[in-house]
Amino acid sequence: MERHFDENLQALKYQLMKMSAMAEVMIADAIKAVVDRNESVIQAIYQREEQVNHMQVEIDETCLTQIALHQPAAGDLRFIMGAAKANSDLERLADEAINIVQRAQTLLKEPPLKPFEIIPEMAMIARGMVRDSLHAFVNRNVDLAREVLLRDDRLDDLKDAISVELTDYMTRDSAAVSRALNLLLISRYLERIGDHATNIAEITIFVVEGRDVRHHADKKSGGSGQ
Amino acid sequence: MERHFDENLQALKYQLMKMSAMAEVMIADAIKAVVDRNESVIQAIYQREEQVNHMQVEIDETCLTQIALHQPAAGDLRFIMGAAKANSDLERLADEAINIVQRAQTLLKEPPLKPFEIIPEMAMIARGMVRDSLHAFVNRNVDLAREVLLRDDRLDDLKDAISVELTDYMTRDSAAVSRALNLLLISRYLERIGDHATNIAEITIFVVEGRDVRHHADKKSGGSGQ
Repeated sequence: MERHFDENLQALKYQLMKMSAMAEVMIADAIKAVVDRNESVIQAIYQREEQVNHMQVEIDETCLTQIALHQPAAGDLRFIMGAAKANSDLERLADEAINIVQRAQTLLKEPPLKPFEIIPEMAMIARGMVRDSLHAFVNRNVDLAREVLLRDDRLDDLKDAISVELTDYMTRDSAAVSRALNLLLISRYLERIGDHATNIAEITIFVVEGRDVRHHADKKSGGSGQ
Repeated sequence: MERHFDENLQALKYQLMKMSAMAEVMIADAIKAVVDRNESVIQAIYQREEQVNHMQVEIDETCLTQIALHQPAAGDLRFIMGAAKANSDLERLADEAINIVQRAQTLLKEPPLKPFEIIPEMAMIARGMVRDSLHAFVNRNVDLAREVLLRDDRLDDLKDAISVELTDYMTRDSAAVSRALNLLLISRYLERIGDHATNIAEITIFVVEGRDVRHHADKKSGGSGQ
């Protein structure tokens, strides 16, 4: 029984890693559509979103099943609860890839505004944050999780830099407004992806360093409510 | 024991309702800062955010404690897992109120761009969605949850309408770019609040109508993986 549970926990981690890898490809392809003006990747992004949605349902069911069947101890219970939350973040950051590709489809109708500098860098950081936050989670690696949190500052700085740059474009040239605005929204979607990775990193820390559930329950046993 | 668990479940619902009410006040006050140019509400919004963050930790601990101590049956387990997820959405939609108030603080440094029409309506819809999605969740009311999902379409339409309007302002008058951009971002934050409420409504449907956990486990007992 115990060994069976460990195998199931391993399968849960594998499901999450698969979903994370899928989301990462979606982000990479969405940025290809923006930066390389590559339309051939677009359809696959929408198809992958459907797969990601399907994976989300499966992972939630796995989490519930594992708790119901095995009544795991505090540490594993915390991990499974964290997995269910990380699962939501993975699904939502994949949605951001869809938001990006929708903006790309609008941008492809017009000539490019300018060469890309900040957006590819933001995309690289965001993808790395997704990969490493999930890696930190499945390996309960708090050091890596904290390192991911630090990278979010760089992403925020880049978002501020591109906001200033694009606002300047919009102010100087009214013909640039629509394109600059779409690029600005794309930078915000990348920032959101970083936020979701940050959430997964924070969940990792909560899972590994959180107070013991039963200890916490004992403390509250006076029944004084919160 | 059984009665004790029911009381704890009731306390969990109460915690969620309190957090939702707090988030709703934050949104209302953030919009007051934008629309009425009322600076006096700003400090309280930041203070409430700290309380919301504190509530989030407490609710997660309550969920873990209840599962660990009472090993609830499938329906209640699903509800508690849903509560932990709804908890994340409540915390994040409260964060959007912070995003709004930050834009408001920038907007207050300049004269108003134009009278407000769409933003107050979006805020009213978003607040109602937050209140009713949480109400649907704690009462396991699927009809209300589905009704909340429908309201998100109206919010999206308003977001599109204000995008067109503000892009037009930016194109016609370069002096309006910065203010119009801040207002556009505020409309996006309100849309996000609607998205989080939508998530809570979807969680409600998942909790109430989801497949039975153990039945699902039985189906998979062949060990064929996913």
